[in-house]
Amino acid sequence: MRGLQKDLAELVSRDSVKTDPEDLFAYQSDATHYFAKRKPDAVVLPASTEEVAAVLSYANKNQIPVTPRGAGSGLSGGCTPVKGGIVLDMKRMNKIREINRGNMTATVDAGVVLGDFHKTVESQGLFYPPDPQSMTVCTIGGNVATRAGGPRGVKYGTTPHYVLGVEAVLPDGYVIQAGGKCVKQSVGYDITHLLAGSEGTLGVITKAHLRIMPLPPFHRTALVTCKSIENAAEMIAEIIAAGTVPAMLELLMGISVHVMNSMISPPAPTDGEAYLLMDIDGSESQVREDAETLKAICNDMGAMEVRVIEDEKEAATYWKARASLYPLALTMAKKVVAEDVTVPRDKVPVFVREVQAMAGRLGLLVGLSGHAGDGNMHPSILYGEVNEEQEKLARKAIAQIVKTGLALGGTISGEHGIGLHKSEYLEWDLGGAQIELMKRVKKAFDPNGIMNPGKLWLQGGE
Amino acid sequence: MRGLQKDLAELVSRDSVKTDPEDLFAYQSDATHYFAKRKPDAVVLPASTEEVAAVLSYANKNQIPVTPRGAGSGLSGGCTPVKGGIVLDMKRMNKIREINRGNMTATVDAGVVLGDFHKTVESQGLFYPPDPQSMTVCTIGGNVATRAGGPRGVKYGTTPHYVLGVEAVLPDGYVIQAGGKCVKQSVGYDITHLLAGSEGTLGVITKAHLRIMPLPPFHRTALVTCKSIENAAEMIAEIIAAGTVPAMLELLMGISVHVMNSMISPPAPTDGEAYLLMDIDGSESQVREDAETLKAICNDMGAMEVRVIEDEKEAATYWKARASLYPLALTMAKKVVAEDVTVPRDKVPVFVREVQAMAGRLGLLVGLSGHAGDGNMHPSILYGEVNEEQEKLARKAIAQIVKTGLALGGTISGEHGIGLHKSEYLEWDLGGAQIELMKRVKKAFDPNGIMNPGKLWLQGGE
Repeated sequence: MRGLQKDLAELVSRDSVKTDPEDLFAYQSDATHYFAKRKPDAVVLPASTEEVAAVLSYANKNQIPVTPRGAGSGLSGGCTPVKGGIVLDMKRMNKIREINRGNMTATVDAGVVLGDFHKTVESQGLFYPPDPQSMTVCTIGGNVATRAGGPRGVKYGTTPHYVLGVEAVLPDGYVIQAGGKCVKQSVGYDITHLLAGSEGTLGVITKAHLRIMPLPPFHRTALVTCKSIENAAEMIAEIIAAGTVPAMLELLMGISVHVMNSMISPPAPTDGEAYLLMDIDGSESQVREDAETLKAICNDMGAMEVRVIEDEKEAATYWKARASLYPLALTMAKKVVAEDVTVPRDKVPVFVREVQAMAGRLGLLVGLSGHAGDGNMHPSILYGEVNEEQEKLARKAIAQIVKTGLALGGTISGEHGIGLHKSEYLEWDLGGAQIELMKRVKKAFDPNGIMNPGKLWLQGGE
Repeated sequence: MRGLQKDLAELVSRDSVKTDPEDLFAYQSDATHYFAKRKPDAVVLPASTEEVAAVLSYANKNQIPVTPRGAGSGLSGGCTPVKGGIVLDMKRMNKIREINRGNMTATVDAGVVLGDFHKTVESQGLFYPPDPQSMTVCTIGGNVATRAGGPRGVKYGTTPHYVLGVEAVLPDGYVIQAGGKCVKQSVGYDITHLLAGSEGTLGVITKAHLRIMPLPPFHRTALVTCKSIENAAEMIAEIIAAGTVPAMLELLMGISVHVMNSMISPPAPTDGEAYLLMDIDGSESQVREDAETLKAICNDMGAMEVRVIEDEKEAATYWKARASLYPLALTMAKKVVAEDVTVPRDKVPVFVREVQAMAGRLGLLVGLSGHAGDGNMHPSILYGEVNEEQEKLARKAIAQIVKTGLALGGTISGEHGIGLHKSEYLEWDLGGAQIELMKRVKKAFDPNGIMNPGKLWLQGGE
């Protein structure tokens, strides 16, 4: 592939092209290393929209696969290149272009790291809610491409709710401006939200216009200790129905709090089977009022303890530990596969019961933590050993989790996306006619099929 | 067209097909009667998704144009049939299928009248914010198809923010379930939001899954009298930047309040050149606090008067009059063309100044009321006479309004959609490459081009 390297070096600056074996190795998968499929032939780190356009136009003419990549922190294999070709690492395009308080919008390059953006807007008293737990590394372009969520989704919604427009490069090299900086728009097809969640299969997002908000001035964290996970799940349904929605409403199993305690100071109580961890935000008077309401609901439903944490530093250790739950789980299990099923919120209790029963039947350790306030559950298969038998059991469990979610009117992914991990279940969720429609939409954007091939649906047809 | 009538009567119940000339006449346009183009050959009022599928499948085989229609209250000619064929009037499909408090969602048929849905959810202490001013007649299917907004958009966003999923019939008769009842989803392309705003050109929406909220318990209406329209526009930008966002934040010209006074009791003061009309909602303590903040901002910026209306019946007359502004304008002008340009919110003052100057130069009466809190302005051309010269001037003014909005980073439609009215300006907003992309997307859904032909973009290419 010396020709490829030479060609690319003419399109972008020479040090933006990587073809050394160790570089290519680092780009062969996202955080789901177990999906590693085929090393790319080259990695390009473009510095501008024009460079992205030049690379795509070249790849399109030469029918070379292109896999766009943010931070590679995905959990579905979305940026794992399965047919080699070019990986387009967007991290050099990392400028915050504008923060406009008078319009309450910001414009950012696709490669801006979410955590950096949070810090910048928060230093100005502003707020951008989406908070996938990989926020210290993940990029906003990746967030848009996967419709990323996070704990604050329960009150504030996920990334697509904040995307007003994108700049994107189509496979033929054309640059389009979809949507824009206006908070309302009805101008033809919503290309912005079609690109959101397309996982790099339609084009490359190079910029995003985002809605921002005033930063809520006051917060309190509350920890509810529950005697059983069903009890915790029932409290969630009751909280949603009562309408006092916290900014975050996480369901944690006892074992999760146990591993999180290595980061929580002073440690949380460990006598519950499950916990609700909440962040309540707003004006001080509103937060205090909401905290009382939530406390009353949980106590009425038999909570063992409801603790409102007044010390902000202590509260922060809870949220830092929560954001680290996936890496923490990896310290106690040989392998962790995090599921991402979402169910209607009133169905969380029955979902929890059925998954627990299934785990018991299969003799598997399945964590059941998740952003349960919006019905988004992350059942995690924790492997004691990695061997063929365990993999077989895990696959059985995943299929069963997915089926259980769908039977309850749920969906196979809330915020991780489909990538490779979920493509075999896509038809269960959407039906054949909708997948055929998606394939035709894909063709409308990418007639040569160069964009992130092998993703979303099972291969064979496109 | 006797054959058509006979064929259709075999697909749906006989009384669901209308072909009498007076019936067809009533379906030849939406509320923009001046776009009336060509009477349909038949009107069908389907009673079920299956009937919609049967009609589409038949029309697709026989290449007969199909124009879906909600209440026909649109202001862009979106459901005006330009090539005859079948108009599909969805109003018989009007069941509210589910209101689920535990999940905070509702499922409705496309033909449910928005005002009826408001009443139903509000009677249960629930809230569905979108409020296009035609809400007593318009249908939720029509709202979704045009991404309809309304005054509450400033705080709560527009229809697409509340649509979690749709059932839709594709032109080939296949029924798809896009999205669903979950508040988070990342499962392939967002077909739900591609259908939202597609104005009936991709398929027929038959059901919608909607997010609902708890009903805010307390409201206050405030009227701010301003010495000039620029002063009013500047206050809006300041209110947005301060972050205390009312549920509604309307800009009204003196002349608008003058005509609205026939419905406001007791009448509003008429000594301002412009007014801000606000609704502030939330808990009582929050509303009182916000009202003080907003009052202070407006007073600091030189408001002539800030009046918080304590009497709820009196307040209601303001909002009823506001919702009637378009028909009220028709009592004082021979013809009214309502524009729908949206600009970034910090650009509202300069937009207002430029449109006023342009109206002065052309000697035209241009109303400048609108949902200015979200940058969505409805400059209205008020015709003293309807004649060729006036039409020419009006066309010039509309083009100028659109250009002014775009030059400020705005967009040609905030909530009315493109239909026929804006198709000539679409390329100014989106550029040629994006329109070509939209045409390919259209083909992916509707290869025979039967769905609402002649809309969105200028014809010739599809």
